[in-house]
Formats: sequence, C-alpha cells, structure tokens
Amino acid sequence: MAGNTFGKLFKLTTFGESHGMAIGGVLDGCPPGITLDLDAIQLDLDRRKPGQSAIVTQRKEPDTVKFYSGLFEGRTTGTPIGFAIHNTNQKSQDYTHIKDSYRPSHADYVYDQKYGFRDYRGGGRSSARETASRVVAGAIAKQFLADVKINAFVSQVGDLKLEKDYQELDFSLIESNPVRCPDPNTAAEMEGYIKKIRKEGDTIGGVVTCVVQNVPVGLGEPVFDKLHAELGKAMLSINAVKGFEYGSGFEGVKMKGSAHNDQFNVDGSTKTNYSGGIQGGISNGMDIYFNVAFKPVATVIQAYETIDKDGNTVMTQGKGRHDPCVVPRAVPIVEAMAALVLADFTLLDRTLKT
Amino acid sequence: MAGNTFGKLFKLTTFGESHGMAIGGVLDGCPPGITLDLDAIQLDLDRRKPGQSAIVTQRKEPDTVKFYSGLFEGRTTGTPIGFAIHNTNQKSQDYTHIKDSYRPSHADYVYDQKYGFRDYRGGGRSSARETASRVVAGAIAKQFLADVKINAFVSQVGDLKLEKDYQELDFSLIESNPVRCPDPNTAAEMEGYIKKIRKEGDTIGGVVTCVVQNVPVGLGEPVFDKLHAELGKAMLSINAVKGFEYGSGFEGVKMKGSAHNDQFNVDGSTKTNYSGGIQGGISNGMDIYFNVAFKPVATVIQAYETIDKDGNTVMTQGKGRHDPCVVPRAVPIVEAMAALVLADFTLLDRTLKT
Amino acid sequence: MAGNTFGKLFKLTTFGESHGMAIGGVLDGCPPGITLDLDAIQLDLDRRKPGQSAIVTQRKEPDTVKFYSGLFEGRTTGTPIGFAIHNTNQKSQDYTHIKDSYRPSHADYVYDQKYGFRDYRGGGRSSARETASRVVAGAIAKQFLADVKINAFVSQVGDLKLEKDYQELDFSLIESNPVRCPDPNTAAEMEGYIKKIRKEGDTIGGVVTCVVQNVPVGLGEPVFDKLHAELGKAMLSINAVKGFEYGSGFEGVKMKGSAHNDQFNVDGSTKTNYSGGIQGGISNGMDIYFNVAFKPVATVIQAYETIDKDGNTVMTQGKGRHDPCVVPRAVPIVEAMAALVLADFTLLDRTLKT
Amino acid sequence: MAGNTFGKLFKLTTFGESHGMAIGGVLDGCPPGITLDLDAIQLDLDRRKPGQSAIVTQRKEPDTVKFYSGLFEGRTTGTPIGFAIHNTNQKSQDYTHIKDSYRPSHADYVYDQKYGFRDYRGGGRSSARETASRVVAGAIAKQFLADVKINAFVSQVGDLKLEKDYQELDFSLIESNPVRCPDPNTAAEMEGYIKKIRKEGDTIGGVVTCVVQNVPVGLGEPVFDKLHAELGKAMLSINAVKGFEYGSGFEGVKMKGSAHNDQFNVDGSTKTNYSGGIQGGISNGMDIYFNVAFKPVATVIQAYETIDKDGNTVMTQGKGRHDPCVVPRAVPIVEAMAALVLADFTLLDRTLKT
Repeated sequence: MAGNTFGKLFKLTTFGESHGMAIGGVLDGCPPGITLDLDAIQLDLDRRKPGQSAIVTQRKEPDTVKFYSGLFEGRTTGTPIGFAIHNTNQKSQDYTHIKDSYRPSHADYVYDQKYGFRDYRGGGRSSARETASRVVAGAIAKQFLADVKINAFVSQVGDLKLEKDYQELDFSLIESNPVRCPDPNTAAEMEGYIKKIRKEGDTIGGVVTCVVQNVPVGLGEPVFDKLHAELGKAMLSINAVKGFEYGSGFEGVKMKGSAHNDQFNVDGSTKTNYSGGIQGGISNGMDIYFNVAFKPVATVIQAYETIDKDGNTVMTQGKGRHDPCVVPRAVPIVEAMAALVLADFTLLDRTLKT
Repeated sequence: MAGNTFGKLFKLTTFGESHGMAIGGVLDGCPPGITLDLDAIQLDLDRRKPGQSAIVTQRKEPDTVKFYSGLFEGRTTGTPIGFAIHNTNQKSQDYTHIKDSYRPSHADYVYDQKYGFRDYRGGGRSSARETASRVVAGAIAKQFLADVKINAFVSQVGDLKLEKDYQELDFSLIESNPVRCPDPNTAAEMEGYIKKIRKEGDTIGGVVTCVVQNVPVGLGEPVFDKLHAELGKAMLSINAVKGFEYGSGFEGVKMKGSAHNDQFNVDGSTKTNYSGGIQGGISNGMDIYFNVAFKPVATVIQAYETIDKDGNTVMTQGKGRHDPCVVPRAVPIVEAMAALVLADFTLLDRTLKT
Repeated sequence: MAGNTFGKLFKLTTFGESHGMAIGGVLDGCPPGITLDLDAIQLDLDRRKPGQSAIVTQRKEPDTVKFYSGLFEGRTTGTPIGFAIHNTNQKSQDYTHIKDSYRPSHADYVYDQKYGFRDYRGGGRSSARETASRVVAGAIAKQFLADVKINAFVSQVGDLKLEKDYQELDFSLIESNPVRCPDPNTAAEMEGYIKKIRKEGDTIGGVVTCVVQNVPVGLGEPVFDKLHAELGKAMLSINAVKGFEYGSGFEGVKMKGSAHNDQFNVDGSTKTNYSGGIQGGISNGMDIYFNVAFKPVATVIQAYETIDKDGNTVMTQGKGRHDPCVVPRAVPIVEAMAALVLADFTLLDRTLKT
Repeated sequence: MAGNTFGKLFKLTTFGESHGMAIGGVLDGCPPGITLDLDAIQLDLDRRKPGQSAIVTQRKEPDTVKFYSGLFEGRTTGTPIGFAIHNTNQKSQDYTHIKDSYRPSHADYVYDQKYGFRDYRGGGRSSARETASRVVAGAIAKQFLADVKINAFVSQVGDLKLEKDYQELDFSLIESNPVRCPDPNTAAEMEGYIKKIRKEGDTIGGVVTCVVQNVPVGLGEPVFDKLHAELGKAMLSINAVKGFEYGSGFEGVKMKGSAHNDQFNVDGSTKTNYSGGIQGGISNGMDIYFNVAFKPVATVIQAYETIDKDGNTVMTQGKGRHDPCVVPRAVPIVEAMAALVLADFTLLDRTLKT
C-alpha cells in the first residue's frame, strides 16, 4: 500500500488499523522551537472522538495521544514527531459477521480484490479511525500556523441547509452544540433530524464548510499543486467525502465573468470574493472558504442481502457502533487537513525567500 | 516554483510560458514497448487548440508537438519522453496594457506578490496554454491504458444543463458539435448561448462531466492517495476549475444510507452506482463518473477599473483573444488528467503483483 | 527536519531520539501476504544491540520491537507497518556535561546552529540508536526479498585488513565471533586490537564489506537512481560512514579498460566481475559487492578542550557508554540498508511488467 | 524508467538519448529574480563537450543549449526552466555493429533484459551524453549559490596520483591544461600517459577531487539525507563512477578517534578537518572535499569476443569515438552535481527560517 503520507515538507505518515494495537503517525518537517500546547491537541482529538454525544457512535475510546519523539522540554526540536493512540475498546467480535462477506459501499470487497485478504475487524485500515492521527498532526499544524484562523462547521445535514453566508455566523458558537453548526436554530433542527435517522437505524449525509482567515498572500504553487487542488485532495482523502468546491464553486458556473470577477481595492484586497481567496492556485489574502460533501455512512442497522468471498448471496445484519451522520465528527478532521495543507505550503513558500 | 510535476510513477513535468519560445514537458515512467499512435496524440491537441471553432478563442496556434526522446522505431523505450510545442502566434503587444496593472480574478497580482515580478505576456506560466503539455502526456497515457475508455463532455453551460444520465448518451456524438455535448439539442442551445455571451464581450462558466469505463478493480491507494482524491486534485489543477464531485456528489448528501448503498450482484458488480466506481479510494470495476465545475473566464472584453503595481487605480480595457466559455476546450484536458491519474495508479498497483 | 524517509515504494520513515521515550518507524509499501518471521527480525536487532559482547558499548538495551499495525494473523496486510522500540536504559545524566558544550566531530555544534537548540541527551536524533529502526525494516525487507542473499562482514579494523577475496570466505562463520569477520584468525587479531584500543580509552575505524547474491537481472534505474548510487547513499547515511566503493572501486581506477571489462559467457553471466554486479546502474545478475568505510567513533574516554555555546573554551571529559569500534555492530545495519534498497528497486521494477 | 529526476526542491529532470533529436531537461524550483549569465552556462558545457582537446573523444558536438522557458528579460522567473541541446553529429551507423550484440561492461545487456529492447545508437539513454543536461542545470545552481566556491580537478589517472593536499594547489590552474589537473607537472605526465593509452586503443581510470568552499553552516538533513549521502549519490550517478569518499575517507579507518577528532577553535571552526566539512550529515562551515573514482571507459578499440541477443558468441571490434580517459571531461560534471546538491539543501534549509 502506498499513499500513507501527506505533504511534501510538513509531512505526515500515518499507520494503524481500527482494531489493531495502536494507530499513530510520524510528522516530519515541523520546524524547531515551537512550544506545543499538548492540551489543545488533545482537545481536537476529543472533538473527533467517538462517544462524545448522543448523535455519534457510542464506541468508547479515550483517544489519548502519546508522543514518542520530536519534543524536548516542551518545544519541537525539528526532528520527527512520532506519536501513537492505543486502541482500548476494540470489540472485534462485532465484526466476525463480515469476515467472509462484503458490506455494500464499504471497502471490504476492493481490499480483498487488491490485497488478497484483509484485516476485517472494524474495517481495518479503511476505517475512519485513521483520521485521529490526522487530527493530531493537524493540531500541531494549527499551532505552527499561529495567526491563521481555521473554522470548519456543519452547514448541511440531509436536506437541512444552513442558509446564511459565513460572514453572518459567529464561529464561537460552533462548539456550542453537538452538531457543530454555529446557527443555534439550524443546529437544533439538524440534531433532531439526526436522532430520528438514528432511530430508523439509518444514516444521512451532510456538508462541512470551512473558512480559513488571515492567510498570507502567496501560498500555493501554480500548475499542478495549486492551493485549492491540494485542499481538494486533502478533503477528498477523508472517508466518505464525495465532493469539494471552493469560492463560487458549482454555483459559479452559472455566473457571467463580468459579475464573477473580483474587483480590486487599492490595497490589493478585492471587493467581492467569488475567487474564494485563491487566484491561479495562490492565496490572495482574502478568506478561503470551501464546502466538503459527505455521503451517508454505509453502515445501516438493518438486514440486507450481500455476497461473500466465494460469490454466494448471504443475508446479514448491520451491527457495530456507528455514526448516523458523520459530519459533526468530521469538522475537526476538515480543519486538520486544511492546516496540514497550509503548513506545507508555508514551508514551500519559504524556499523563495532569502 | 514547485509543483510542475504530476504523478508518482507515470510522471509528467511541464514547462513553458504562454508567450515564451516553447511549452513542453517530460513524461517519465511510461513503460517500454508501447507502439505510439502519434496522430492520435495530435488529434487530442487539435481538440484543445485555440481557433478550432467560432465559440473559442481566435488565437491561431498549430500546436504541433515534437518528440525529442523516449521513442525508437515507433515504440516507447521506457526512457523519458521529452517533447515541445513551439509557440508561433504570440502577440505579446496585446499584453503591454497589463504589464503594470492587475487583471481582476487573474493570477497577475499573486504572481507579483509571490515571485517579485512576472512574465506578464499572455499570463505567462499561469496561462491555460500550459495544459497543451498535459494533453500530450494524457494522450500517451490513454494509449498505455488501452482498454480503459475515458469520455468527457460538456454537461452544463451557465444555466443550461444536460438533463440526462450519462447512460442515456451516445458518446460518439461528443465531437459532432463545437460545444462537445453529446446531446444535439442541448448542444445547439449551448452553442447559441455561448455566441450570445461572446457578443456581449462577456464569458460564462460550465461543467464538464467525465465517464471512465472498463477500469479494472483495485486502482487507487486508500488513505491519502485515494483514487478520487487524486482525480479531484488533477481536475482542480486545471485552470478555472472551482469544484469536483464524483458518484452521488453533492446531491448524495441528501440521501439516506439505506438508499445510497450500492448492493452487490454475485459477480461483485453493484446494482446501483452511487459510489461512482470507487469504494474506500479504490476502483471497484463499475463506471467512474465525475463532474468538474469551471468558472467564467476572467477576461471580459469590457472596460474596467483596477489597480497597478503601486496601488493606484487605473482604467483598463480587456483585450487579447480569449474564450467566451472554457468548457468545450477543457474536455480533452479533463480526459488527459484522468488518463494520467489512472496510468499512475496502474503502475503503482503493479508493485503488489509478483 | 526533512530526510527521515528512505525509499520510494518500499518506504521507511523513522523517528526517535537516543534518550526519548521510544524510537521506531513506519514501513509503508511492503506488499501484502508475507508471513513474517518476527524472531528473525528480533535476531537482527540483537546483532545490532548494545551490550552484546565485550567489544561494544555496555549500554544495556533489550531493544525489543513492538509492532502496532500492518500485520494480521501473522501476515503483512499491505498496510503500513508501524513499530516502536521503547528506550529503557537512558542514563541522561551522563550527558549533562555536554548540554552546553560541543563534542568534537559530533553533530552537537551543527544541530545547535541549524535548529537553534537540541536534545543533547545521548546525541538525541544524531545518535546511531536511530539505526535500530532501520534494522527492523531491513529485516522485513530481507524476508520480502527471500531468495536474495545479503551477507555483510567486517573486513578491516584500523590497519588490520582481511586479505582474502569474498569468494574464499565462509559466510556462516560471520556470527562465530564478536567482530563479525568470517576469517577466524583475522577475527581474533581484530578482537584483540579492539580490546587494546578500548583500554586506551580510544577508538578505531574499520570497513564493512557486503556481498549480495542471487539478485535478479534488471534492478536499478539508470541515470540518477542507479542501483549503486542508491546503495551508496544508503551506506553513507549510516552514522560514521566516510566512503563507499563497489566492484573494482578505487583500485579500479588504475586498471586499463581492456583488463577491466567483464567478458560475457553465453548465458549472459560474465567471466570476471569488476563491475560488481551492476552495469549502467542496473543489476546484471552477478554478485554485488561493496565496501563501506567507517571512521573511528568520535567519543573517546579522554580529557579534551572544546568550546561551549557562547564560544568559550572549556575542558571536558569523554563519558558515557560507547563503542571502541563501530563496525561489528554496523554489520546488520549495512545489511538492512542494502535490503531496503533492493526491496525498493524490486517494487519499482515490477511497474514495467504486465 | 524512473529516476530521471534529481533533487527535491531544486529539481532537475533530464531526457534524451545519445543519438536522438535532442537531449535536455527541466529545472524546477530555481528561485525567481536571478540574473543568469548564459555565457557562463555555455562555458561549463564547453568544458564537458567532446572534441575539446586531443585527449578526449573526437565526436564534434557544439552542445549549444537553448532555453525555452523560465527566463524573462534575463532573469529567472521562478517557473520551470526548460532547455534542450540538439544533437547534430550523430553517426548512428557507427553503432550498427552492436545492434544485436552486447558490449562488455556496457549497459547494453541489462537494458535489453530490463526493457525488452533498446535504442542501441551510441548507448542510447545510458550514454554519458545525458550529463550535458546536468552541466546546464549545475551551472545555474552555481549562479544561484553565488558565494559558494566549487572546484573539481583531476587528482589521479591510472597510477599517476597528485601527491599534494588541495590546500597547496592553485585552482586557477585547473583549466590551464587539457587534463584539468592544477599541478602543471603532474598534468603533463598525466596528459602523456593518456595519449599513450589512446594509441594502444585502450582506456584508463582516474579520480576527480572536488573542494567546496564558503558553504554556510547548516546544510544537509541528518538521518537518511545527510549532505555527504546526497553528494555520494550524486557522484555515483555519474557514468563510470565506482567509488566516493569524503573527508578522511577510506584512509580514515586506520586512524584513532583521538587523532581523527577535529578540535574546535573558539569561532566554531576546527583545527583539523578530517570531517571534510560535514558533521552528522550537516555542513559545519569548513571546506567540503571528496574524491570520486572513475573506472576505465569500457569501449576499447580492440577486437573482442562477446555474445549476441540469442546467446551466440560473436567477434566484434570496438568502434566509435570515445574517451581514452573520462576524468578530464568529468570535472565539470562533478561540479555540476555538487552544485545541484548544495542548491537543493539550501532551499530545504530555508524552510526552517521565519
């Protein structure tokens, strides 16, 4: 398997299966001398962890991260930061029913086809549990970025859409409700809806919106590694993501150029921001904002027909502890990936400076 | 500048500015022994080239590619394929008006900020002219992939949307009209609309849909380098792209898991295909399909106010030869990038086989 | 810090400081389905570990490796193999004397200059303790390579040189003595010499020779990533290495082409092997052999004058537990790095095969 | 084929076969704003080019480089620098005798084995002609490095060894003779010897020594990408190289640590320099010096027996225009590769600075 490393200079490599001994990673390239707030890292892990509220999976994992290297007397040394989160609440027996059969819209089938066999327990490496390692590294990236403000929030659950521009929102309310929607009324509606979905044993999709502010001008590499291309890849690499758009996005295709163009103010800022803070793949200093679409979680607590390894039809029953809607827990993951992208481009941009 | 290389094993590096001596690239990693159809490569270049119809830019460039290496007696040797397309129709004087001022929603401003100065002629490196090199490499990738069928087409121009599933379309009609929409009626409407927009001196956005068929099971690397994450990055790296979605995409967020799950047939294929041919980042053998959103081209042939290098307000007038709508010419670029992604993952997947 | 990853496809990333909580790594890209002999891995670690004989450092570390991921029911799954070796015998107080001063010919000074400060305990990241992680990954690579035989041994200690061609040696005797020289008489001399050096509180350099047999034809990538160039880099990346030569090496410069050329047998093998099993950067199926020069360890148990952070002259005294001669323990490290290089090129070569 | 790219940030990709249409490359990552002295680049090419003196190959190639991109009004723009050197003096018919047979100690056999067939004309991609592209990029790297002084010279031809430390040499004399040995007497001896070898139709090996001065403290990445490990790889990637040593090198293994350690002066410089300017893989500000061993060129103008594709024994005769001794022309290549390594690490080191 390749592809377990993200970033070129601020570089995260992760390891670990859902029900193995531990998950974790190595963050290489974080500059030296940064005093790390370890509580802030744990806080982001807690925002992602299972069991945090009534609308997420009830698997109980403390998700406590241990740092093995790269820190000395509270500061980053510039050497690789090795870390691990030990798994404690594996109920592998919950998964014996899928040992030889394939859950629809899961990675079971393709893993068996590609690798010949798989660690089937909890989805093994394909489990979103892997993203906890991203949150650790992303939380470090946030501290490295310091002045940059990254706020993600839930803007849609099923048909329920937050009908406000991000400028009208108070980001300090994001954590005020289990949905992580900064509009209390919409959040309450969403919460009720998710609970209803859960009772049905079903799941529902959603959208996470992310706003990045105070980004300096000049991050991103034109041509293949455009800032929004890397952000897109980062988001699409998160489990269950089906789409990414930034700035005017898919709606922008309906606009005329004369209306879509962002006219300049004399200080280089722009009067509108359909560009979403990025021109030609490079940040222009305006707010970066983008949407990430998450499909409904594939595990539904219902009986269904599927196939086994040998191509036989089998009846099975969704079990285990799963999320009825993935977006509330996805918020810190989206932020983490955005932070990793920006940290990487920050280092890359430094190579141009003497 | 970094980021001029795409792919890990089937690896394209491009060079060249819009009004420099030549653009071109090096394709490294193409396996040996492939008999290349050079006409097919030129044909894809012709589908992208300016001046091909009344609804695209009237810059006249023959866009003839010359191969410098990597071929011997008609076959790839396994060594790097170096190639160049010489620029012949530069009208650099068309651009002196932007030498010191910044066009809105172009990369002029951010290039100056990032690099200190820029080759302003025709947008320099930020020009979509760079994508001709991608089309060359992509056309080689298509030949390498052989059995895989990649068809892109225009599915939306402004508000005009092709309201048919791709299964209802006849891909052989894509090239039957200048818009590259396989539905003749919709194509005619779109063509008329683009002509109207052009007359206004304005531009309009659009969507390119791409369908990839006959992909073997197993391409893609789970975790960070998921197949759809690399496809997304590839598409978002194309000039003017604002969004990417695959399978059920943004619409899928409204669905329940019980409806969204793709139930298996006994042969491993699925009854529905909301997954878009990819599960857990790995191709599952079903059709891959995705949408790519393009914003309206920023150059409008109208007078507008902008700023210059020194922060003064200046009046200027859009000039040059530009596309009223970028999607007809983007079709072969989308195909090329899809081919490059699939070729790369094909090589990567081989590393698992003995 | 960059550069903590080795390999492109069979890819090892290591972390950890000499006196931190743990050292370890992530091995990404190891193909699935390999039944790992964990004892063989531990055995290689034991060959490298401190305290194993009277002629190496007396630091006592069990160096027991724990695997966190990538294995399921005894086999590699194709997912990243995360592992750690917990440090247990740190005597960090041994190093307070170097907290603010720089040991000659160590990395102390350059680390402070480059990173601003350093984890001074036991040399921190610059300690050869890091190589234990390489031995773990190398031992896995050996098992992946299966038929390839990699034998390293000590061929020189100070002036004492093993004056035999490798063909005359019985590799099964390498582990029969603490020096790891397969010639018992020379080994005894070397052992006596190292003991004498140790008594003096001094250190001495040496050479490790490595022979790789049963390598298939075709490994290595011509141009920049020649097989011997990667082997050279791999060896030079080991602590204390000052030189690398393969095949005829530095002696070969004195030869005429007519004598140096390796004439072919009809089966493609060659009558002589001055090429060292590699032509044009690609393995030719003959034995690969190379020499690696190690300088004398910098830590001598003697009083010496040096400078501190502020540029003052200070007297200090070599302390801690160190090796009088590094080559006996370097043998498994050389083998491990050779195995990593060959595993990587094996995967890369597969990309050419359909 | 992989491995046609060198460097991570200051990144050169080369293409081209000995007798193809052109060789060339793309240099990506060169910072913007550097005024390039194109004559200096051509001068380095002239130092490498065939036909320059009586002791090198008599193939006549002007080796004129054309730049396609990345330069604007005399300065680097930060975009990729594409360049090509067109081949003009191909005598491909000289090589029909090796179309189906394998020259000993050449890459013919392994190319056929690895790739299935090969462009046999002049060695195709395995020809040292490829290094002209390196010289172009290296010459740009030298200009980027500005204050760093890189001087390579011939220090040995066959048994004739320059018995002086580099400190005793006047580097301004390197170009005063066709051998490129800065000691006139030794140079004359070497020249006579090479002429004698040429008359015999034979070839001889040699050593190039390189001294790099004014390197700032802090270049290089500890662990795998040590400065000397990358230098070693760079040198070993040059055609015909068999060994690399730096600082005390292979001789250093005979020394005791107490003698080998480089004691500090109060300014951080050292009284001796057995370390060769590098400690722990990082430059320490002292001179970097290293030796590169080149084997005798494999092409000898003599009749010899070899095998063909089908394993038959055939008699053949060395033909073509070749070098009796490769080191005089290798001098600018060694410098170029050293410059590329240092430029890359310079950019990488910048990522640590705010």
